This record gives sequence, C-alpha cells and structure tokens, in this order.
Amino acid sequence: MFFEGSEKKIELQLNSSAVSLRSLPHSFWQQALSLAQAEILSSLSNSHCDAYVLSESSLFVWEHKLLLITCGNTRLVDAVMFVIDKIGIAHISDLSYQRKSEFLSHLQATRFEDDVEQLSTKMAGSAYRVGHLDNHHHYIFCSEQAQKSDASACVLMYHIKGPVAQYLRGVSQSATEIRKLLELDRLLPQFEFDDHLFQPYGYSINGLFEDKFLTIHITPQERSSYVSIETNLNFLQYPFNIFSEMLRILNPSSWDIIGMNMQVDNLGFPSHRRLASCDLQLNPLNDFNYNHYIQSDCETLLAEVL
Amino acid sequence: MFFEGSEKKIELQLNSSAVSLRSLPHSFWQQALSLAQAEILSSLSNSHCDAYVLSESSLFVWEHKLLLITCGNTRLVDAVMFVIDKIGIAHISDLSYQRKSEFLSHLQATRFEDDVEQLSTKMAGSAYRVGHLDNHHHYIFCSEQAQKSDASACVLMYHIKGPVAQYLRGVSQSATEIRKLLELDRLLPQFEFDDHLFQPYGYSINGLFEDKFLTIHITPQERSSYVSIETNLNFLQYPFNIFSEMLRILNPSSWDIIGMNMQVDNLGFPSHRRLASCDLQLNPLNDFNYNHYIQSDCETLLAEVL
Repeated sequence: MFFEGSEKKIELQLNSSAVSLRSLPHSFWQQALSLAQAEILSSLSNSHCDAYVLSESSLFVWEHKLLLITCGNTRLVDAVMFVIDKIGIAHISDLSYQRKSEFLSHLQATRFEDDVEQLSTKMAGSAYRVGHLDNHHHYIFCSEQAQKSDASACVLMYHIKGPVAQYLRGVSQSATEIRKLLELDRLLPQFEFDDHLFQPYGYSINGLFEDKFLTIHITPQERSSYVSIETNLNFLQYPFNIFSEMLRILNPSSWDIIGMNMQVDNLGFPSHRRLASCDLQLNPLNDFNYNHYIQSDCETLLAEVL
Repeated sequence: MFFEGSEKKIELQLNSSAVSLRSLPHSFWQQALSLAQAEILSSLSNSHCDAYVLSESSLFVWEHKLLLITCGNTRLVDAVMFVIDKIGIAHISDLSYQRKSEFLSHLQATRFEDDVEQLSTKMAGSAYRVGHLDNHHHYIFCSEQAQKSDASACVLMYHIKGPVAQYLRGVSQSATEIRKLLELDRLLPQFEFDDHLFQPYGYSINGLFEDKFLTIHITPQERSSYVSIETNLNFLQYPFNIFSEMLRILNPSSWDIIGMNMQVDNLGFPSHRRLASCDLQLNPLNDFNYNHYIQSDCETLLAEVL
C-alpha cells in the first residue's frame, strides 16, 4: 500500500489592501481545495489563524497570508490558481512554492516544471532545484518579492524506526495515544491542537498559539515512511529544539532540514552526518537553506521482494 | 541536455545443447537491438567473445552467454524477448535482469515492474528492490537458476569531478586522449579495446582479454554525470583494484558497488563513507551484494536555476 507522503507547499502573502482571507466563507475553501483534490476534515481557530486538517495535509489561513500543504497525488497549484483569481493578482504581494522530490514521481499528476509554468502566468519569478536528481532534492519557485517572507522551517524525515514508528504502523492506534507519544502537550503547552487519524495508517496534527503554527504529517508505512513537520516557531524562545525532540521520538534514517529566512541549529539532533547543504539567496530579502542529514551508522538494507 | 546514463542489464546463460550465439548472423543482433531502439556502432572479437559498442552501451556475446547493457530510454526487454524466442526457452538455463533507479524515471518507456511482467512469461523468477525509493536503489530479477552465474561486478559513479571530468565535458575531445586519461593501456596491457566518442559528449569503451571483459560508459554532463564500469575480471589476479583506479581518475561524489558472486574490496577507494549495504542470497547458488559510498566531506550543493 503505497502513499506518497512528500508534499507540495505554497505560501501566498497578500498586501494590506486585500480582503481578509479569514472573511471568506467555508465554501470558498472547499471549492478551492476540491480543485486540488483535497477536502477539509477538521478545523481549529484562534484570533490570528484558521487551521484546517485536510484529507491530504493542511491549510493555514491568516488575514493576509495563506499556507497550503498537500501530499499524495494532489493538484495543489490548481487550488492556488483559483485563489489567486478570486483574490485578484493585484492584491498578492508574493508567492513561494516548494515541492520535495517524490518517492514515486511517475505517479504524480504534474511535475514541478508544469506547476511553475502555470504559476508563472500569474507572477514572474525564479525556479530552482537544490540537490542532485539521483538523490534527495527540493524544488522552489519564488516570485520577485518586494517584502521579506516570514521565517519558517521544516524537517522532512525518512524511514522512521523504533517503538513510536512501530505503534504508528500497528493495527490499533488512537489519536490520543499518538499525541501523547509525540509529547506535544508536554513540549508545547501553550498550543491548541487539532488532529486526525487516517485509516489504516497516517496521522496529521495542526497546532496554533497566537500567530505561530506547527503542523505534523506522518505516513508511517514500513517501506516508505515519511514525516514532515513545519513551523514558524522562533526556536530561540524555547529551551529545546522542537525538531531535535521529534527526531529523538521518530528516529528516522535520514532527514532534510529546510529553512526560509531561518537557520535551524542541529544541537540535540541524533548522532548524524551532514551529507549536503545549500544556502540560496532567493532575492535580496529572502534566503533559503537546505541540509541533508543521515544517521551515523552504515545502514544494512533489506531487499524488498517485489 | 539531459541523457539518462543509468542502465538496464540482462545476462542470459544457455545450456550446452543450445546453438552457439556467436554463430548467429550480424543481422540477428541488428534486428534484436532495433527492438530495444539501439544499434551497433563498432565491434571487437577474440576467440571467446564478440563485443559490440552500441548507440546505447554494450552487447557481449559468448558461445553460450549473452550480456546486454543499455542506457537512455531503451526497451532492453523487447530485445531479450526476441532473443529468447529465437533461441528457444528450453535452451536457456538462466536469466538475470538488473535495472538502476534512473535520474528521471518518468521519462522511461517502461518501469522495472513492467519488464519483469514480460520476462516472467518466459521464465519464473524472483524480483527484488535493494535500497529505499527515496535514495539510490537497484532492481534485480533472477530466474530460478540451476547453475551458478559467472562472477562479475560493477561500479556506478555519480557526479564526477576534476580534470578528467572537465576534459570529458570539453568542447574538443578525442577518443585517444580519453583512453589515455583513463590509463587503460597502462593498467590492462593484455586487453584489446574498442571505443566510441559520442557527440557532443559521452564515451563508451569495451575491452576483451581471453574470456574477460571490461566495459565503461561515461555520461559526463555537468549536472547529471554518470559512469558505469562492469567487468568479470578476477580482482585478485591484479596488483591494483581497477575500480579504485577509476574512482581516483574520475573522482565521483558518490558510487555504488554491485557484485554478483563477487565481493569487491574497498581498498584504495578515495576517502569515503559507506552509507548502505546489502547482501542478498538470490537462490542457493547465487549471491548479490550492493554497497553505496559517498566521499567523506559534506557536499556544498549549488542550486540549479530551472
């Protein structure tokens, strides 16, 4: 049972003259997401943000900012094109689109280059690939921005192992138990959370605290496990590194750390080697960084019988 | 200018009652290869073997053994199905088929699973994947063999660097100079060689000495360089490790070593880390091993502007 965990992610920034995205009706988001072939499963709001758990990942809506993350075989860009048309391109100050190399790219409905071709009809920008084609790589398209994007970072984990990974693959799980295993209430007590447990596997959780968000998506399947965690938390305000804590709990064989206007310290990471890194100045105001880590030991591969 | 260097490779063993493959006319091989969308560019023979340089890699024909390697977007299996039908399945004692994960798998005419479906209609066997989907991985299908396959090994190199790599990407090259840079005449003076220089880039060379062969295929393109070297040399009979020598000259960022009934010592390899390994017993007589190496230093990635 293969499920493509690797995500596509878009961030739109609106200028202050734009309508508040939060004033748009629920039906607007349903319609937009249906174009991406995703749907809303659950939602959580605070005074800053509406956070939706989707059938494929998450949507975060602030007054003048939108973050949409979708996995599986979704057409994220189709939803974005709809949103841009409705809001009006004149009200959008910048756009960034990222896409991770997939486990099985041939199953995808579109390729990054196709997506960029569509997005470019709305906003001029630059497209990059970071990482070799034969290895983990990451695509990014960003518009010719006039303003600095909010700082954010994500960790993408591959091949999780150990007791929590085993639990996530087990026959009987509960969202309550998974949340406890992830220690989120202990680590981030100020956050409110909203989660969803998929059948037969898979877990998504969104968290909000003031204008800060955290979102975790877990595809635990034995041979193609994948976890993504994205946040705009200021790491310096916490006595721990939230990514290190999650790496300790989920124990992946390898992971990517990706920052937008943010460098994530590797203090507290499991014993590792950093195999590759890239610092990319996207434009005068925004920088992107990518680091690929693996655990220290040589991995003994088990052949998969096909 | 993208060219898929990653190869598909088939080995057929015939039993002693079969016709000698070397007695088949040139037109037979032309017809078979045309089905794979490859053609013969050049040939070399000795008393044991006929070796052909192809528009996409190489064909080696012994009396009762065939080794066909093709890269690009070829349909190697179609050629093999033709050969099996002509020879008669009763005369084929075993078959092994290998395929490396491609740089751009979505451009391929077939997938490994499709190939195995075809081959399985001729001979029952087992199919495996070694390596995670998000990383270098290698596919192998082998028939339920009754005999031990000949020992052989290959090194697959990624992202070659340094003066020889630069020369191979240069605007004016010569086959003579490339052969000299590879130091083949010095290292293997007993071998006869036959090579071909492609336009604008790319170099293939076959070598024969008695029943031993060596074949090297170089796709030097800056952003997706790839080199494969395959041989049935007995490494113990030489004072040097031929793979180490080639790694020194071509200086790749990473490489795979794959052995069939042969373990390749990493003595003399450039300063490296072994990231992953697998020993796989294909059947009671045959074993396969896979090792993935990278250079010791963290690689600084340059973003590719798309």
